[in-house]
Amino acid sequence: MGTLRIIGIDPGLRRTGWGVIDTDGVRLGFVACGSVTSDASGSLGHRLRQLFDGLSEVLAELAPAEAAIEQTFVNRDAVATLKLGQARGIAMLVPALAGLTIAEYAPNAVKKSVVGAGHGDKTQIRAMVKCLLPRAVPDSADAADALAIAITHAHARSWTRLEARVALAGITP
Amino acid sequence: MGTLRIIGIDPGLRRTGWGVIDTDGVRLGFVACGSVTSDASGSLGHRLRQLFDGLSEVLAELAPAEAAIEQTFVNRDAVATLKLGQARGIAMLVPALAGLTIAEYAPNAVKKSVVGAGHGDKTQIRAMVKCLLPRAVPDSADAADALAIAITHAHARSWTRLEARVALAGITP
Repeated sequence: MGTLRIIGIDPGLRRTGWGVIDTDGVRLGFVACGSVTSDASGSLGHRLRQLFDGLSEVLAELAPAEAAIEQTFVNRDAVATLKLGQARGIAMLVPALAGLTIAEYAPNAVKKSVVGAGHGDKTQIRAMVKCLLPRAVPDSADAADALAIAITHAHARSWTRLEARVALAGITP
Repeated sequence: MGTLRIIGIDPGLRRTGWGVIDTDGVRLGFVACGSVTSDASGSLGHRLRQLFDGLSEVLAELAPAEAAIEQTFVNRDAVATLKLGQARGIAMLVPALAGLTIAEYAPNAVKKSVVGAGHGDKTQIRAMVKCLLPRAVPDSADAADALAIAITHAHARSWTRLEARVALAGITP
């Protein structure tokens, strides 16, 4: 197979993290990461537009082929959930407008994929991201989390392909 | 003053209502209303894109100068709030991208402005919308609600202008 470029996105109204990696199905290569922020003193419409413009620029420049986003943890207060939902709407719209498929992963799936256990804490996740992508220097926790989501998607795709190959070979698991 | 064109938006993931009116500061004129729907069987990214494309088309065609949206009632379950938040993010992004200012009104303000009391029910609101804008034939409850939000904004702007005129005349309230 060729190289697949994946963007992971960790949405937030104040700061949305993003991380882009390349994978050939086995190895992972760091491309870039960063975060798009919105001006807390601006109107909500203006802030959503800042996120939209910033993410659109990242996608136009780096041209990922697939996107991955964390399934949002909604067990918080309603006002925070609504704010996050609005930012998440933008974070999903931008890759959708670019014609990308968007995979969603539960927070535990991200932890399990990166750390190897479903209950790794945030520090462990960031240490593993650093280990898997040594060239990455995330500017924020959100950018590191976005890379973790991209890694999760790369792993999930490898497994899917492996299963397909096993099926083709006529091996019953 | 000239005529001001206002779009009211009632966001929802399945169906987002919109209503456009003209006002000269005293009279209200119906322009158009309708709703943009998303395909429930599609992916979330695809659905958000459908709302984005549909609303963008309405704004491009009718060219409102200002937008108004209901402040979302968040005292519901978290999953519903997140869904609504995602749709609401798109509903605010589209006018923001067109450079419109976006006013937000609490549900009670909409009821009070249209029905004259803060606790009018949905049926009363729709009857008053019909009375204030006889030419309007909303295709859905969401379109009628969107017209009510636009009317609320027209009323709020008239009051603001009246207060400014009173202040200019040196009258202390």
